[in-house]
Amino acid sequence: MSEKIGIGVGMVGHAFMGRVHSQAWRSVGAFFDLPLAPRMAVLAGRSRERASAAAARLGWADVETDWRKLVERDDVQIVDICTPGDSHAEIAVAALEAGKHVICEKPLANTVAEAEAMVRAAASAPGRSMVAFNYRRVPAIALARRYVEEGRLGEIRHVRAQYLQDWIVDPEFPLVWRLRKDKAGSGALGDIGAHIIDTAEYVTGQRVVGVSALTETFVKERPLAEESAGLSATGGAATGTVTVDDAALFIGRLSGGALASFEATRFATGRKNALRIELNGSLGSLAFDFEAMNELWVSEGDSGFTRILVTEPGHPYAGAWWPPGHGLGYEHTFTHEIKDFLEAIAEERDPAPSFADGLRVQRVLAAVERSAADASRYTVVSEASLGEDA
Amino acid sequence: MSEKIGIGVGMVGHAFMGRVHSQAWRSVGAFFDLPLAPRMAVLAGRSRERASAAAARLGWADVETDWRKLVERDDVQIVDICTPGDSHAEIAVAALEAGKHVICEKPLANTVAEAEAMVRAAASAPGRSMVAFNYRRVPAIALARRYVEEGRLGEIRHVRAQYLQDWIVDPEFPLVWRLRKDKAGSGALGDIGAHIIDTAEYVTGQRVVGVSALTETFVKERPLAEESAGLSATGGAATGTVTVDDAALFIGRLSGGALASFEATRFATGRKNALRIELNGSLGSLAFDFEAMNELWVSEGDSGFTRILVTEPGHPYAGAWWPPGHGLGYEHTFTHEIKDFLEAIAEERDPAPSFADGLRVQRVLAAVERSAADASRYTVVSEASLGEDA
Amino acid sequence: MSEKIGIGVGMVGHAFMGRVHSQAWRSVGAFFDLPLAPRMAVLAGRSRERASAAAARLGWADVETDWRKLVERDDVQIVDICTPGDSHAEIAVAALEAGKHVICEKPLANTVAEAEAMVRAAASAPGRSMVAFNYRRVPAIALARRYVEEGRLGEIRHVRAQYLQDWIVDPEFPLVWRLRKDKAGSGALGDIGAHIIDTAEYVTGQRVVGVSALTETFVKERPLAEESAGLSATGGAATGTVTVDDAALFIGRLSGGALASFEATRFATGRKNALRIELNGSLGSLAFDFEAMNELWVSEGDSGFTRILVTEPGHPYAGAWWPPGHGLGYEHTFTHEIKDFLEAIAEERDPAPSFADGLRVQRVLAAVERSAADASRYTVVSEASLGEDA
Amino acid sequence: MSEKIGIGVGMVGHAFMGRVHSQAWRSVGAFFDLPLAPRMAVLAGRSRERASAAAARLGWADVETDWRKLVERDDVQIVDICTPGDSHAEIAVAALEAGKHVICEKPLANTVAEAEAMVRAAASAPGRSMVAFNYRRVPAIALARRYVEEGRLGEIRHVRAQYLQDWIVDPEFPLVWRLRKDKAGSGALGDIGAHIIDTAEYVTGQRVVGVSALTETFVKERPLAEESAGLSATGGAATGTVTVDDAALFIGRLSGGALASFEATRFATGRKNALRIELNGSLGSLAFDFEAMNELWVSEGDSGFTRILVTEPGHPYAGAWWPPGHGLGYEHTFTHEIKDFLEAIAEERDPAPSFADGLRVQRVLAAVERSAADASRYTVVSEASLGEDA
Repeated sequence: MSEKIGIGVGMVGHAFMGRVHSQAWRSVGAFFDLPLAPRMAVLAGRSRERASAAAARLGWADVETDWRKLVERDDVQIVDICTPGDSHAEIAVAALEAGKHVICEKPLANTVAEAEAMVRAAASAPGRSMVAFNYRRVPAIALARRYVEEGRLGEIRHVRAQYLQDWIVDPEFPLVWRLRKDKAGSGALGDIGAHIIDTAEYVTGQRVVGVSALTETFVKERPLAEESAGLSATGGAATGTVTVDDAALFIGRLSGGALASFEATRFATGRKNALRIELNGSLGSLAFDFEAMNELWVSEGDSGFTRILVTEPGHPYAGAWWPPGHGLGYEHTFTHEIKDFLEAIAEERDPAPSFADGLRVQRVLAAVERSAADASRYTVVSEASLGEDA
Repeated sequence: MSEKIGIGVGMVGHAFMGRVHSQAWRSVGAFFDLPLAPRMAVLAGRSRERASAAAARLGWADVETDWRKLVERDDVQIVDICTPGDSHAEIAVAALEAGKHVICEKPLANTVAEAEAMVRAAASAPGRSMVAFNYRRVPAIALARRYVEEGRLGEIRHVRAQYLQDWIVDPEFPLVWRLRKDKAGSGALGDIGAHIIDTAEYVTGQRVVGVSALTETFVKERPLAEESAGLSATGGAATGTVTVDDAALFIGRLSGGALASFEATRFATGRKNALRIELNGSLGSLAFDFEAMNELWVSEGDSGFTRILVTEPGHPYAGAWWPPGHGLGYEHTFTHEIKDFLEAIAEERDPAPSFADGLRVQRVLAAVERSAADASRYTVVSEASLGEDA
Repeated sequence: MSEKIGIGVGMVGHAFMGRVHSQAWRSVGAFFDLPLAPRMAVLAGRSRERASAAAARLGWADVETDWRKLVERDDVQIVDICTPGDSHAEIAVAALEAGKHVICEKPLANTVAEAEAMVRAAASAPGRSMVAFNYRRVPAIALARRYVEEGRLGEIRHVRAQYLQDWIVDPEFPLVWRLRKDKAGSGALGDIGAHIIDTAEYVTGQRVVGVSALTETFVKERPLAEESAGLSATGGAATGTVTVDDAALFIGRLSGGALASFEATRFATGRKNALRIELNGSLGSLAFDFEAMNELWVSEGDSGFTRILVTEPGHPYAGAWWPPGHGLGYEHTFTHEIKDFLEAIAEERDPAPSFADGLRVQRVLAAVERSAADASRYTVVSEASLGEDA
Repeated sequence: MSEKIGIGVGMVGHAFMGRVHSQAWRSVGAFFDLPLAPRMAVLAGRSRERASAAAARLGWADVETDWRKLVERDDVQIVDICTPGDSHAEIAVAALEAGKHVICEKPLANTVAEAEAMVRAAASAPGRSMVAFNYRRVPAIALARRYVEEGRLGEIRHVRAQYLQDWIVDPEFPLVWRLRKDKAGSGALGDIGAHIIDTAEYVTGQRVVGVSALTETFVKERPLAEESAGLSATGGAATGTVTVDDAALFIGRLSGGALASFEATRFATGRKNALRIELNGSLGSLAFDFEAMNELWVSEGDSGFTRILVTEPGHPYAGAWWPPGHGLGYEHTFTHEIKDFLEAIAEERDPAPSFADGLRVQRVLAAVERSAADASRYTVVSEASLGEDA
């Protein structure tokens, strides 16, 4: 083990995603036998005070208040972007141009144009790049893909994908950055809808080729969040307008002929983090719900659905951890992601999902928004009374 | 009890629906204290031999080979229509004109025009009429409606309705009448899609006002069924064309502002009779799956979902049967339906769902077919390569 | 069908068991092609008024107020005993001596001596006899037995059997006959414990050979029930003593070497009718809970547990009813029982479970009571303080 | 944060338990705001090569090959014992006498006498001591205790505790140390039975006061493990005798009057790590299964069981981690344990479960073994034939 090569990591952002990425960087080497040993070199955050506290707590050796300095540092070979979507393109392009490897949170960007710029930068840079669709690294999801790849489900006819949360059902929940189009690009669509598009494409190996969509904002005005209050500088304004979708529904076709339905919402009362996917094929089916993330339900022919506890040594990622039945949690998806990223870097190949994969998801998001905006694509049910009909 | 008034029933058709309706007519009086005592007077079927055998087995006193004679009989006050959809309108209109009460299997008809004719006949006839959406009579579904009516879920934002079966996944499954447009009107859409439209409208108290739809026929050619072989008289032809949909997906809006998704399919391998509905409201949610028909899952606020075993004395219909925890089966939904129909007749009021309710569902089916047929309503995802974009 | 031989049935008792047996007699011929056609000839009950009302409602042609007259009637070939346990032996022996076939509710009797008398009577009489352990006729339970018989689970090592109810948790629930030793013999032990003993023996094909037991009466005094009030004739007494167990736990060994645990209780708050059994064998396992009676969970090797919806044509009893996924309810277990009884009569063989099977269960009940009554069989955990130890 | 006091940790053993304890020491400070900052100072293992490799991988700064040296080091204030049970007493007593705090894996010892010695040492030493019953720190288990403490379940009548695994079902699985009495003390009983005794006592707040037990060794001879092969030095011997139980069942009474059943087995095919507990009280019930560790099922009165996803900010431990619905895994129970231990040290109070709690569990294990060894405590079911009875 003495010959392991160290590799410096700089992370931008230290909120929710920063915390979970840190745990992944900190833990990955203890469980996976990696060719590269990550060093948690530097954390960037706008406030030195808060960034320093986060660095001490999360285990980063140094702090920068300007991400540009982080990108330029010689002790940083990997840039990990954990900021809101509006800054992804700028940071990622700068990091790639500086010769760094880049892992970037999803969705890849707030617009297709930004995502295209990132893909172009990735194509011409020496560094490797990856978009952080962490749910691909749930062992059950990876096992699902294996079932499809091995042909055990036959030809896939149906995909049902949902991502259901309920954290903004309360109309008094404030207008945080995820509810503002300028910061987040879109609402449930880009935040969690992007995950189920990627998951569906990953598991089936097919692409979404066309959609028909509806979106809705149920609560249109909300109290300003402290963060917004600071940014808005409007003085007396107590509330602000929600500028993103609360929910997005779409149906569509996949490149392999399957019919698919998607739903992303933050208004599914009682559902906390229900990323669900069900596939029906000519030979079998499978179903998953992240709220029971260690389980994959599989049907092969007539025998009903089997609840597979995805904790066996032969299951994806699971062998590195604990004995069967001793389950994993949310954070492990990130540990697996980092492991795959480090292996790709060491083996000098492109990791998956690449920025190009992220762009493809971005284009689906854009098609959903175009479809939802076009009322002519919607068929009104006749309400003619009987008299009028006659 | 001696003063109970008898009421004669004539049933047309004795296949699957005839068998289960018979069990309901036979059992209803032993469990519900009804104002009318149904007599199983006469069964109509085209083959006297088969109809007689069915009558003996199912408990019908007499047999007719022409439904017109059944409709005219003096000992028949109720006509129960258990035939394929192509004959519903003709039989129902004749029965209504003959002064009978009519209960008719769903979907109400094969076209909106036929359904309208039935509604007109019902409006001008003395008899009561009902369309047999039996799933309304699942105790858990009726309890779900009660929750919504009492406002316990608040404003309904989301409806997710699915009806998943798998009985024609095998491409060698024959071309039975349910796969022929001339007999069945449509495929999964009218057969099972109609049920989830009615269930969604019943539980929410809202109407489907607009849709965007996709339909598909996965297996386009099938072996002729014995029944079709007889009808086709083509001699050598071994296969025939499936003229209905195998699956239908649609999203839409309800009159109360909810977003809804619907999926009806006969290609969901491993799902046998999964009529599922989930509602999310501003205060709570509920979920149901007919494959576990005695359970309703309810969330009210933060406490997760409660699995209610819908077998308590205070639950809809349940008190008439067994002690708590001693569940009911599929057939009981029909017994409940018959009970409600007999009570409505005795109380001289229109039962629900009425023919008008059936017509409304028919119009949704028609809108789904119009939407699915119009490719312009579908948004293609850009597949431009990066080079082309640049 | 015309050659079917009619067979007259007389039923004694018309409470809960009488209602469900009636539904079975009424329905069985419509779903199973039987060699004998049961006629619901006569119902016996002590009050003519109540018996007549029950007969009218449940479909019995005539009424007797003395079961002895029912037993002697020429139009009765089968006697169906639905009374409390204290009268089983007397009625059954009389019916057998009168040359009738007898089906008797469980437990077979209130004592081993009574049960032995019944077995002796059955051995020397021409009629067939059966004890009504209806849960054997749950399709999932019958399928479980098939799995064991076919060796798919290997050598059985563990049996976990529970029957959990909660209907007397409220201390104000009255002292009904099931809580009085003179009528019921025992409490949860004989009422529901008997079912899980029979189910465990039936599914495994092994016998309980030894036990170690605990029983408890949590609520020792209860308000008199109306029925008891009449019987007690004590005038002012408002409450009475519960003379049976509320709960019984026992562990033991089966004849094939398995370890088994049993628990029967009426104090499992929130569990309504949870007859549960789990088996672990050297090759596989299975699990069942009557609260989801259409499901059997099976594990064969490493693949987790499969939820089999026991509604396929090839599953026990299921093919006679509805298409896959259209589940059955509690009452169908009785219909299946009657069907098996009629077939055994027609084929002139002993039905199972026989009175001898009922006696065997009775002996296990007696052993449980002996064990629970003997405090010396119980090992006290040392509570010596450390000082005393030193 | 700069004022945090560091505290040095020395861990003995680096197999399964050592790996998971290391992850806990490594992670705890990033998620909990602790008064003490643990330093992973030194790891002890008999082989320097293997210990060094483990230390590098798991993040320990130094290595010792003799645990006695670790215990004496000045940079070690906490000794973490992750060895088999036969060395617990010696290491723990030495560490306590050296003035260290001690956390010791369960069961506390291999005999009651050893456990008593440990309790005596703890009583007279300045350091704090804790036995590592990690399952107390499953958020759902801690929430269960809160429900009981708050009286929401009323008086507890029933406890059903099981710990089901299947890792030695295969008779070719080798004779590892956990199957040897000299190393492990007992089999399933001490390894996993100890967990459910502690869990039952912890959740109910009651003690096991008496038991009646059965134990069994299903596979009595197994291939020697490599480790055993090395130790045995017998040359040609290919198999060895299993000297511990494969399964242990016992029923008993708790100090508060509840009836309890316990089952610990390694032969429950298809069950991987099913630590299950169900409680029934006069007002409500709860149920838990570690195979779905983020869920607690609670019934309060009539409304069925609610599946609580134990990931809300107000749930025990959960607020330190991720948003609702983003579940935890097995390892987090250890992180919580370490957190509680560090807080107790800083606050100069005894942590729970203490060595005295571990001794109490040890006494229950001893009572189970005494009961199982005494055949007179077992009631044979009469098998007398009818003829003999007469």
